[in-house]
Amino acid sequence: MMSSRTLTVAAAQLGAIQLATPRSQVINRMLKLLDRAKQSEVRLVVFPELALTTFFPRHIIQDPGEVAKYFEPESAEDPAALLKNDNTRPLFHRARDLGIDISFGYGERWSDKDGKLTDYNTMIYYSAKSNAVLAKYRKVHLPGTKEPVRKPDHAEQLEKMFFAPGDLGFQAFRVPGLVDGTLTARDGDATPQSATEGQGDPILGMLLCNDRRWPEAWRCYGLQGVELVLEGYNTCGYAPQRPGTEKEQEELAVFHHRLSCQAGSYQNACFSIHCAKAGYEDGGLLIASSMIVAPSGRVIAESTTSDDELVVAQINLADCRYYKEGVFNFEKHRRVEHYGRIVEQTGVQEVPLLAGESV
Amino acid sequence: MMSSRTLTVAAAQLGAIQLATPRSQVINRMLKLLDRAKQSEVRLVVFPELALTTFFPRHIIQDPGEVAKYFEPESAEDPAALLKNDNTRPLFHRARDLGIDISFGYGERWSDKDGKLTDYNTMIYYSAKSNAVLAKYRKVHLPGTKEPVRKPDHAEQLEKMFFAPGDLGFQAFRVPGLVDGTLTARDGDATPQSATEGQGDPILGMLLCNDRRWPEAWRCYGLQGVELVLEGYNTCGYAPQRPGTEKEQEELAVFHHRLSCQAGSYQNACFSIHCAKAGYEDGGLLIASSMIVAPSGRVIAESTTSDDELVVAQINLADCRYYKEGVFNFEKHRRVEHYGRIVEQTGVQEVPLLAGESV
Repeated sequence: MMSSRTLTVAAAQLGAIQLATPRSQVINRMLKLLDRAKQSEVRLVVFPELALTTFFPRHIIQDPGEVAKYFEPESAEDPAALLKNDNTRPLFHRARDLGIDISFGYGERWSDKDGKLTDYNTMIYYSAKSNAVLAKYRKVHLPGTKEPVRKPDHAEQLEKMFFAPGDLGFQAFRVPGLVDGTLTARDGDATPQSATEGQGDPILGMLLCNDRRWPEAWRCYGLQGVELVLEGYNTCGYAPQRPGTEKEQEELAVFHHRLSCQAGSYQNACFSIHCAKAGYEDGGLLIASSMIVAPSGRVIAESTTSDDELVVAQINLADCRYYKEGVFNFEKHRRVEHYGRIVEQTGVQEVPLLAGESV
Repeated sequence: MMSSRTLTVAAAQLGAIQLATPRSQVINRMLKLLDRAKQSEVRLVVFPELALTTFFPRHIIQDPGEVAKYFEPESAEDPAALLKNDNTRPLFHRARDLGIDISFGYGERWSDKDGKLTDYNTMIYYSAKSNAVLAKYRKVHLPGTKEPVRKPDHAEQLEKMFFAPGDLGFQAFRVPGLVDGTLTARDGDATPQSATEGQGDPILGMLLCNDRRWPEAWRCYGLQGVELVLEGYNTCGYAPQRPGTEKEQEELAVFHHRLSCQAGSYQNACFSIHCAKAGYEDGGLLIASSMIVAPSGRVIAESTTSDDELVVAQINLADCRYYKEGVFNFEKHRRVEHYGRIVEQTGVQEVPLLAGESV
């Protein structure tokens, strides 16, 4: 039974992209997945983190000209730069023509008003109906190290070297027209309407890779009533310095990925779409397991390959309500007076020795 | 290979306790489990939430004299009241004699300096070596309703009626002597030592039932360097008003229990022990699945019945380090400047309609 909050969504998993793969070839693969999505009546397609290139933070790249090749230029002066960019324009055109919203990750080289450049690991949401980028997210939780560890076999994780931490926080956003027949303020009704009551435009949020392991990130969206979280990732499945065989490591990495995504969706009563770049990139293994998770925390669709693959599910955003109004009714159950540490300290402050007195 | 941070721990799951079951009979069952623990060289035994009685918040009990029967009296004037209490004294004596630390939940009727009574859903940690209660936790996240919903078949969840929310927050504590051979400040060494570096007394925390679903609770302990979280629960496996058959509901409840415990342990790089009161209590079904979880998030031991059962595992607290120093190195990776909402608002504040402008 179709309700007005039902839509079909997809994760468009990408197989490996090598250092030598030209951007145009990647875009062609993404366009093929969009065409395939149209056949399944998909309204929203999520692509991976850094979808346009290989996961370059595994490499030590120091020549500034070489580094620049992995980024798309943007600036405060030209808000539509990405739409006009030769690399990404074909994607937006196809999405608009097909009437499919898209979300994807890329390296953003941001030029501020004074011309100062800052690089971010970024994800955007493009609405086909509005023909506009509705929201931008810059990755907050950068993993890895700022300096190369120089371990063998492409085991670097240099996001802290290549990117500044995201400065936009976790801003949920509404997507007009993503589901049919919703009542909105634009219909001349001045009464604010609640998405969790099945009215108003859907509320979405974006995360990138490592962010999904951090319950703080999910909760910031949950506190804005998020109904659907979109996440792209490049997650290392094997590193020679870690314990365990390649197979054991990959299984553990997939287990942690699923655990984090399922817990995040359940504990914030939202759907989520998780999209991998997968397979062997220049010798480095990336896990697959792109998936769509329900507010129950259950996986409702999951990739079966490590190649380009469309993972499709029909979801009803109204299913969030059972959990949002029940076990995770934040207003009724949260006790913020006891959560101070979460924002007052960054790292661990261990209990002092000898603190244990009888009570 | 035994290291100095290795110990054997257990969850002492209890089968159902009916409304009519005398306290003495329950204590005898708990003593038997303690004796069994001794045979397995267990150093720490965790019992369920409200271990001494049936899960009475499923019942509408309004007579004050009747309510009082489910609580143990405590007061600021007599810090050792629980040790001397006729109900609980035998437990502490046996634990001391066996050299086993115990942790269990009970209804606490607290009398403050002015004689004002407040009821809490409480859990304590007793050290056999110190012959003292080292720490007390009062449940923060009370589920359910303050008023009866009067739905059929014992489906009430009246913790908000019977208890005040915990006022002690999430205070991690150290347990001297729980593992052998640790260096501590008591050895005359004034240098503060780090538990996560494998020195100093182990750092523990306690949660009760619904708390385990709230990542805020886990994180508050994680930020204190917790190595082992203890949790007791009474979790409803079936309620007639919920969707799904009894079997489907029970499976979903167990899935949510495991998901929350595994995510909490993984994301805070700690071991955890989870102990159920299980089976049919006066017609209400409680899930079992008592278990011990590793910092990897993997379940390393789990109950196989819904009866009295000891779930035992040998754990090495040093295993926390791999995750505490890696993916969950909070100091390196957390970005508290973006977490403000978590403490600044209790309930959901939805994104306003029409907020989505192009960026």
